[in-house]
Amino acid sequence: MQAETDFSERRAGLFVSLQEARANAFLVTALPNVRYLTGFTGSNGMLLLTADRALLFTDPRYQAQAPRESDCEVRIAKGPLLKDLGSWVKRLHVKSLAFERNRISFDEYRQAQEALPKIRLKPVSGAVERLRMMKSATEIATIKASVQLNSAALEQALRQFKPSMTEVDLAAEIEYRMRRLGADGTAFETIVASGERTAFPHAHPSDHPIQQDNLLLVDMGARVAGYCSDMTRTHAVGKLNPKARRMYRAVLESQLAAIDAVKPGASCATVDRAARSVLRGYGMDKLFIHSTGHGLGLEIHEGPRVGRKDRTKLEPGMAITIEPGVYLEGVGGIRIEDTVVVTEHGCEILTPTGKELVVL
Amino acid sequence: MQAETDFSERRAGLFVSLQEARANAFLVTALPNVRYLTGFTGSNGMLLLTADRALLFTDPRYQAQAPRESDCEVRIAKGPLLKDLGSWVKRLHVKSLAFERNRISFDEYRQAQEALPKIRLKPVSGAVERLRMMKSATEIATIKASVQLNSAALEQALRQFKPSMTEVDLAAEIEYRMRRLGADGTAFETIVASGERTAFPHAHPSDHPIQQDNLLLVDMGARVAGYCSDMTRTHAVGKLNPKARRMYRAVLESQLAAIDAVKPGASCATVDRAARSVLRGYGMDKLFIHSTGHGLGLEIHEGPRVGRKDRTKLEPGMAITIEPGVYLEGVGGIRIEDTVVVTEHGCEILTPTGKELVVL
Repeated sequence: MQAETDFSERRAGLFVSLQEARANAFLVTALPNVRYLTGFTGSNGMLLLTADRALLFTDPRYQAQAPRESDCEVRIAKGPLLKDLGSWVKRLHVKSLAFERNRISFDEYRQAQEALPKIRLKPVSGAVERLRMMKSATEIATIKASVQLNSAALEQALRQFKPSMTEVDLAAEIEYRMRRLGADGTAFETIVASGERTAFPHAHPSDHPIQQDNLLLVDMGARVAGYCSDMTRTHAVGKLNPKARRMYRAVLESQLAAIDAVKPGASCATVDRAARSVLRGYGMDKLFIHSTGHGLGLEIHEGPRVGRKDRTKLEPGMAITIEPGVYLEGVGGIRIEDTVVVTEHGCEILTPTGKELVVL
Repeated sequence: MQAETDFSERRAGLFVSLQEARANAFLVTALPNVRYLTGFTGSNGMLLLTADRALLFTDPRYQAQAPRESDCEVRIAKGPLLKDLGSWVKRLHVKSLAFERNRISFDEYRQAQEALPKIRLKPVSGAVERLRMMKSATEIATIKASVQLNSAALEQALRQFKPSMTEVDLAAEIEYRMRRLGADGTAFETIVASGERTAFPHAHPSDHPIQQDNLLLVDMGARVAGYCSDMTRTHAVGKLNPKARRMYRAVLESQLAAIDAVKPGASCATVDRAARSVLRGYGMDKLFIHSTGHGLGLEIHEGPRVGRKDRTKLEPGMAITIEPGVYLEGVGGIRIEDTVVVTEHGCEILTPTGKELVVL
């Protein structure tokens, strides 16, 4: 889908930030931002933007690939990118250079300072990330494709499920299905946890056989044409005890309430509060130890954060996860997560997988 | 294997760097470094080290996991880790704080400066990475397990190979086998490229069917108990033209020459030169557009770099890749890569997979 994207239009969206920073050039160092603004998918690249030029710096491994993917002038640097880039900053008579303050290391900043003693370096925060928060129709279509593929992969993998399978084997099955369905890979390390291990929200899959009468939590995401999906489902393998069933009911209700709160103009904190207040009704709010969700796109975690203190107002085109969960050591954990996109009047739930408790 | 590791001994190795920096505390922000020094495998964590205390800061998602994995005092931060950490820096009467200059963002540095106005911040470069370059016997055993698993995965996947299979399908098969064999996952995005696409050293697998009478390049790595492996093999699917066969011969000879040069006391540049000079004999040195190799361990790329200008002397216990390659647009690319570990008298090749041209 990248061929259809007008990268120069995206880059034009940055000029407001340049003016605000009173800079006449912008150094983009975060790779997902470089990809967003140029189409380049390599693992090493920096972008230098001025009012009339866009220079993409990368290394010789990408000398054939970069010009095919990107509409920018490609410069192949033999040494550190910042060195070549520095000489272009001088050649283009840049006087002040904006840079991504949260996406450059202290070390790179010092290198830039030393290489460019006469140039004013202006720290800028989240300029490209702000553009990326609002997804275009093409981006939403790609995220939707990623979400649907992710759900199809879970469905196919669960068809192979049998008790006594290990967590690692189920993770392998899931990731294999993703790939075969056309994913670039996973968006993050697949989480498969069963029994009491579900109480660790970010458990690595283990060699534990998944046993009868236990919880099974799967948190998985695919990457399709660069874009991430993210879904969590908690299943019952056989019978659950009443405590776990009550936890499931509470989380599902909490998740639905949070989704109901998603609409343009609502703040992220409001959505988070909607999830928490349902859990409070069940006396389980203290067991909900993370935030309600996060934006996603080229990265698995991007803006906005959907947490207690996040005042960002939702706008049409934002793609976020809604994923409340409760965790009780010695018992287990439940989390239910969908990806939704904010629309004109509310939101569209992209995730097609059902949320009623599935018994395997 | 982590249970056997004495993390406090590793942390003690850092005190020299503290003294050199004239600091009385060390802030470790790079996650692989945090893992190396504490055993903690989570995705968010920072470590504060003083002469007599080791405090691990993470978020509530890891409140159950962190104390099980790590021998440090665990502090669960509800907000940004640096904020909690800052109050401990004051409480412990730290006067000067060393930090990882290439592993902290400019933004985090500024936050630390503002939160700790009376404390001297001392940039330190690569202190933990230098310790990590020399692998312990346990680490080498883990890397070996990762390398062997990786080779077994390739062998199993190639048994499923049939011409007209797509690059993506072969990548899926490879990653599935890795997982089933017990890998945590991949160490990097698996590269499967065929035909002319082999000329792109870092091609993403595509929907192209792998066709008869073509090159097939596979660059793959597993992660086992956190440790990476890395191997490249280039195969012939059917018949190759004389040009490609000659390229294969040149790269294989170059790779063997570089491995021959690996021994304690030799500089990385010498090893790189050994690879390049064989290719020069074939008139192909200009087609070798990357460095000869890199260290690997908890990260897929770590020290030392094995490149033209790298003067690091090899020492027993270093684990490095040797991976010369030649790339010719319109024809294709060949790369052959093993993981080796420097021994008392030379090196041990960990990779068991054969290197003679395999015809599929």
